[in-house]
Amino acid sequence: MNPEPRMVEVRKNVLKQNDVIARALRERFRSDEILAVSLVSSPGSGKTTFLERTLTLLRPRYRVAALVGDLATENDAQRLARSGAPVKQITTGTLCHLEANMIQKALDGWDVGKLDFLFVENVGNLVCPSSYDLGEDLRLVLLSVTEGEDKPLKYPTIFNSADVAVVTKTDLAAAVDFDEQTLDRNIQAVRPGIQILKLSAKTGEGMREFLDYLQKLRQPRSQAASAL
Amino acid sequence: MNPEPRMVEVRKNVLKQNDVIARALRERFRSDEILAVSLVSSPGSGKTTFLERTLTLLRPRYRVAALVGDLATENDAQRLARSGAPVKQITTGTLCHLEANMIQKALDGWDVGKLDFLFVENVGNLVCPSSYDLGEDLRLVLLSVTEGEDKPLKYPTIFNSADVAVVTKTDLAAAVDFDEQTLDRNIQAVRPGIQILKLSAKTGEGMREFLDYLQKLRQPRSQAASAL
Repeated sequence: MNPEPRMVEVRKNVLKQNDVIARALRERFRSDEILAVSLVSSPGSGKTTFLERTLTLLRPRYRVAALVGDLATENDAQRLARSGAPVKQITTGTLCHLEANMIQKALDGWDVGKLDFLFVENVGNLVCPSSYDLGEDLRLVLLSVTEGEDKPLKYPTIFNSADVAVVTKTDLAAAVDFDEQTLDRNIQAVRPGIQILKLSAKTGEGMREFLDYLQKLRQPRSQAASAL
Repeated sequence: MNPEPRMVEVRKNVLKQNDVIARALRERFRSDEILAVSLVSSPGSGKTTFLERTLTLLRPRYRVAALVGDLATENDAQRLARSGAPVKQITTGTLCHLEANMIQKALDGWDVGKLDFLFVENVGNLVCPSSYDLGEDLRLVLLSVTEGEDKPLKYPTIFNSADVAVVTKTDLAAAVDFDEQTLDRNIQAVRPGIQILKLSAKTGEGMREFLDYLQKLRQPRSQAASAL
């Protein structure tokens, strides 16, 4: 018995099942006119702080909610709930990523009414989440200025699976001698043409540009819907 | 067909195989009087900078070498090689952790002579490496002051599998309002009694205490050996 080919085969089945559920989620988001945005990054890149600020700033004009994945604890859900938005924690146990069926289950038992934006914060991990489609419209990969400019070269798959790179904690750029040009070049090397946004959720720098970007993505859809 | 139990079964086989190889490695390190130290952390916690400094400081007195795991690139090996120590990169492709057989293979083809310390830098990941014994004597889990004080609560397994917690980038503590007491409490909550060291590889603060700690771990073994 050679376990390796079996492992690959089982993994393929899991991924195939995941893709079927992700497709159903994507159709559901589309028909409900929800823009679903997922966030992936290392632990400690500032996903939760960034998301709390985003929810807080969007809430006056939009109906927003968030799902947040972690191995253990409800800490992140509690932090995000301070924004006033509905938030649900998904604890994954030892699993290092969210899967589409977890999103499906979390949504099915959740009465949040009609949404404009649904955010999904993945488990902090730069490897595992890359292969799992969650049905999102937009995947953001976050990395902070403190993590080193070579991250994209070392974790190319996650950058390849993302739609936007968000560089966080720009308020610390000077303290860590952040080399912006090198990071930009490394991101573009693994994912040519990807949009790069830079911001600090702490100081608010760059948040306006990010929110404008998100709102523009919703616009064509609403216009298309109203034109029907 | 239900893929989940098969996945669990295959995973158990892989782990069992890993443990057999890890045990052989541990015996080999013991008989060769090598102290094997592994490093795990998120991407961007400063493993490579810390290890480069450690190798540089140990080299005048000890024979040291390092293996370094990454999904892609030889960047870390190139950075570590600046210390003058022999360094070998292990690229894992899409695998989010090192396994014992990778260490075995890397060592078998490598003529480094007799060593005092072998360092093994794992792939940057706070989840996957926790289940894989690499035959090391000492596992260090690193986290930087910029990552948030709740990391131990959110990734308890990796802290449970470690022998020492190393808090890095203390030079940035003031800039991020680092709460030392909270972090210490959270680390002790998931791994009571674990040794915690705090340092900055950039400024050198705390490096002396770390090196003293490492050298003391070697001492009893050498004394035992010379007493034979």
